[in-house]
Amino acid sequence: VLAALLNGVPIVDATHGVDAEDRGLQYGDGLFETMLLSAGAIRAFDDHLARLRAGCERLHIAMPDSDLVAQEIGALTRSCRNGIVKLTLTRGAGGRGYRADPALHSTRLLALYEFNPEHGPTPIVARWCTTRLARNPLLAGIKHLNRLEQVLAQNEWRDDAIAEGLMLDIEGELIGGTSSNVFAVTEGALCTPDLRFSGIRGVMREQVLRAARALGVAVEERALWPHDIDNASEVFVTNAVRGIRPVTALGEQRWPVGAMAHRLADSLRLW
Amino acid sequence: VLAALLNGVPIVDATHGVDAEDRGLQYGDGLFETMLLSAGAIRAFDDHLARLRAGCERLHIAMPDSDLVAQEIGALTRSCRNGIVKLTLTRGAGGRGYRADPALHSTRLLALYEFNPEHGPTPIVARWCTTRLARNPLLAGIKHLNRLEQVLAQNEWRDDAIAEGLMLDIEGELIGGTSSNVFAVTEGALCTPDLRFSGIRGVMREQVLRAARALGVAVEERALWPHDIDNASEVFVTNAVRGIRPVTALGEQRWPVGAMAHRLADSLRLW
Repeated sequence: VLAALLNGVPIVDATHGVDAEDRGLQYGDGLFETMLLSAGAIRAFDDHLARLRAGCERLHIAMPDSDLVAQEIGALTRSCRNGIVKLTLTRGAGGRGYRADPALHSTRLLALYEFNPEHGPTPIVARWCTTRLARNPLLAGIKHLNRLEQVLAQNEWRDDAIAEGLMLDIEGELIGGTSSNVFAVTEGALCTPDLRFSGIRGVMREQVLRAARALGVAVEERALWPHDIDNASEVFVTNAVRGIRPVTALGEQRWPVGAMAHRLADSLRLW
Repeated sequence: VLAALLNGVPIVDATHGVDAEDRGLQYGDGLFETMLLSAGAIRAFDDHLARLRAGCERLHIAMPDSDLVAQEIGALTRSCRNGIVKLTLTRGAGGRGYRADPALHSTRLLALYEFNPEHGPTPIVARWCTTRLARNPLLAGIKHLNRLEQVLAQNEWRDDAIAEGLMLDIEGELIGGTSSNVFAVTEGALCTPDLRFSGIRGVMREQVLRAARALGVAVEERALWPHDIDNASEVFVTNAVRGIRPVTALGEQRWPVGAMAHRLADSLRLW
C-alpha cells in the first residue's frame, strides 16, 4: 500500500491501525469499493458511490457523506495520478456479539495502491473454479466484506498465466469471475447473469449494460449456465479496475477477441 | 473489552490496532473462538482448539501452536477469574486481492470481556428470524469470520425479553439460533440439525452430544424443519459461554424446562 487514511487520518505505521473491536474484522460487517484512479480522477466515482449506498441500505449502515469521501480521496491521491483506491466502510468498532449498537460510528478506511492500467485489449486465459458460491438474495449484488468464497476460489490455482476463474453457485448456475462479472455473446445478444441469488453488481458491469443499450444491442440479464459459455461466440469479463478483458481460452475452448468487446470498449473509451 | 493481545503484545490504546491490510478485515478471511473463562480456566479448551484446527484445515490457514495460545490466554487472564475470552485468527495482513500470499503470517487477536455466568437453568424466550442462512458445505460447521447473516438476524429485534432467534436456511431447514445450536426432544430422542450445509458446530453442541450418548440417550443428527420444533416436547439452545438454555416460549408455543436439559446439564456440571 502506498498510503492509507483511517477516518481521514493518515496511517503512519503498522502499529497505528484499525480498532481490534472493529466489526469489519469481527464479522465482515461492512462494504468495500475498489476504484481506478486514472489521470488523477476516479473512474465512475458516482457509480461506486451508488453501489456503496445500496449496500449501506441493505445492511443498515450509515452512508458517509459523499463530499467527505471525495475530499479524503483527494487528500490520499494528491501526489499520484494513477493507481487503485480501495474504500472499506464498516459498521464501526465496539462490543462483542452480533447485535450492533445503533449508535456506532462507521469506520472509513481508504488505501492507495500502485497500478498501471493497460491500454488496448488484454485477452486472458480463464479456468473453471471448483469452489461454489452460496445463494442468499439478502446479500446478493452488494460488495460486502464476507468474501471467503472468493478467497478460496482464487487460491485454487497459482499459475499466473490464468488470469481469472469462473464460479458457479451451489445449484450450478454461472455467477461470474472471482473478481469480475462475466458476459457471453450469443446470436448477437449480450448475456450476463442476473445475480438474483449471488455475486456482485460490478460498476463496470453496469457501465457495460448501459453502453450496450445505448448502442441498441439486445441485452439479457438472466440465469446463465456453463453451456451458455460453451455456446457463446464471444466471452469477456469486466471489473472497475481492469475494464473489459476478452476471454480467449477457457479449458479446451478458444475464442477470438470479439467485436462486441471492441464496440463496448470504444463506447466507454476503455482501450 | 477489559484487555487485548495482538500477536501476544498488549493493545494499550485504540490507536495501536490491527493492520489496516489484515485479511480478516478485508474479506473476513479467518476464524474465531468465543470461550468461557470460569474459575480461572477455559471451559472445554481442547474442544475449542480442535474446532479451530478444523477451520484452519478447511481454509488453509496455519494453526498456531496450542501451547502458545494457552500461554497468551494465561497472560491475558492473569488477574481475572471469570469472563469471556475471544480468539480471532486471520490469514494475516498484506496485499490487495483475494489471492493470499502463502508466506503470510497469521494474526492472533485475544480479547477478554467481562461476564458472570448464571447458575441454574436460564429459561429463555426465542423468536423466528426472517433472515435466512445460505448453504455452502465448504463453509458449514466451522466458525469463520463471514457472519453478516447472523448480524442481520440479530438486528431484526431489539426486545431484550427475547434472548435468541432461530434461523432457517434458504430452503427452510432449521439450522440453529443466531449464536447457538438448537436441540429438540421428540419421543425421547435428542434431535439437532446435522449442519451439512450451514451453521456452526458449537463446542457445547459437541459436548451435549457426547454427554447424551454416554447417558444412553438416542441421538439424531439430521435435517430438522420448523415442524420438528412444533412437535417437540422440549427445546433448548446451547453455546460455549451460556451452556444449555431451555427455550420455554417461541411464538405461541410454550414448553416447560425439560428433564433432558436437566440431565445433560447435571452430566456436564453446567448448573
